[in-house]
Amino acid sequence: MRSYDQYKETVERIKKFCEERDWSQFHDPKNLAISLQLESAEVLELFQWTKNNEIKSGKESEISDELADVMYWLIMLANHYNVDLLDAMNKKMQKNEAKYPVEKAKGKSNKYNEL
Amino acid sequence: MRSYDQYKETVERIKKFCEERDWSQFHDPKNLAISLQLESAEVLELFQWTKNNEIKSGKESEISDELADVMYWLIMLANHYNVDLLDAMNKKMQKNEAKYPVEKAKGKSNKYNEL
Amino acid sequence: MRSYDQYKETVERIKKFCEERDWSQFHDPKNLAISLQLESAEVLELFQWTKNNEIKSGKESEISDELADVMYWLIMLANHYNVDLLDAMNKKMQKNEAKYPVEKAKGKSNKYNEL
Amino acid sequence: MRSYDQYKETVERIKKFCEERDWSQFHDPKNLAISLQLESAEVLELFQWTKNNEIKSGKESEISDELADVMYWLIMLANHYNVDLLDAMNKKMQKNEAKYPVEKAKGKSNKYNEL
Repeated sequence: MRSYDQYKETVERIKKFCEERDWSQFHDPKNLAISLQLESAEVLELFQWTKNNEIKSGKESEISDELADVMYWLIMLANHYNVDLLDAMNKKMQKNEAKYPVEKAKGKSNKYNEL
Repeated sequence: MRSYDQYKETVERIKKFCEERDWSQFHDPKNLAISLQLESAEVLELFQWTKNNEIKSGKESEISDELADVMYWLIMLANHYNVDLLDAMNKKMQKNEAKYPVEKAKGKSNKYNEL
Repeated sequence: MRSYDQYKETVERIKKFCEERDWSQFHDPKNLAISLQLESAEVLELFQWTKNNEIKSGKESEISDELADVMYWLIMLANHYNVDLLDAMNKKMQKNEAKYPVEKAKGKSNKYNEL
Repeated sequence: MRSYDQYKETVERIKKFCEERDWSQFHDPKNLAISLQLESAEVLELFQWTKNNEIKSGKESEISDELADVMYWLIMLANHYNVDLLDAMNKKMQKNEAKYPVEKAKGKSNKYNEL
């Protein structure tokens, strides 16, 4: 069984990667947030002009790398603010479960304040 | 020590959350990619108009939830395409390490093809 | 004096450009909105990693084309919904002037509901 | 016939609006580019979760204001860099016409370098 340490090892690998290249000087959190946005745009670009809502033909194999690019900046921002992403995720899910009760939200795509 | 299963439990929690609400009908991957983009924009919005490149005053506590929102759609897309995010991350890091050799990239913010 | 017709001529030029290439089949409004988003991301990319909040060195000459790319999709969406952009702009300015009265908004970057 | 001066009047109206509120201090071009991106995201949000690629039900009337919001930041950036948007648009169209010759591009959604 792989351990949660794999997540921490990945985080450490990213930190070391940046330190060795002396990149922290560029990594103020506003720049990190811009990069998160730009990499999310690259995920979206895989779907540009498609009619079937799937990745465009010939680009299917790129999704894994593009998702990793988003994950990278997510981890960078999480590190900067000392956020544990899995903990944050579970806290947010608790809120989501409360905001979208099954009986009200079932089969609807409305925002919680429009249910 | 927390186990890697925590990641899987979180993934399962998200799956169950969506299934109970019958939301898979909205979750074609193009829509997921749009939501990933929109949630990344909400992270960026925390930095709108700041001059010091930090989160704007009074919004600091929101970063954890906003990062979780991005993580949520990242996991949804990863699930859809059977991507293990940590594996994807480590494969991408291997490529990054090759594309940005320390001796060429140190102290520079250029893209690998402009080093 | 250039006439407002220049705007209309530009709009017509874009329409003809698309018609000759039989591209309307791809141009459902959701795809147009995605492209608007992606081209805005390319504008933002010109500022990625900068510390002085200016366009990164060597990219200054690209701003004109990148702004035009955003304008292109803006016009395409406006055409689709029969929106006159200048009229829309002036109606929105009227609302902005009411939402941000000088005496309350002066020197502040808050949203109107946080003034 | 409305004159091209309507465009210039709109640009002047926006300039005056900002000057009266002493907002130029926030309007470094990186912040303008972020706002352009965030307003484009609001256009895209109108299409979130739709299955028919149209604006979601009940939000149709918002498109005009949302397009104006994008136009606003486009004009702000154009002003900052002394770009005439209509000129920029026509120069870009000339390039587009060359990059996408009818005989190669007809009926295809590929990028020019993948035609």
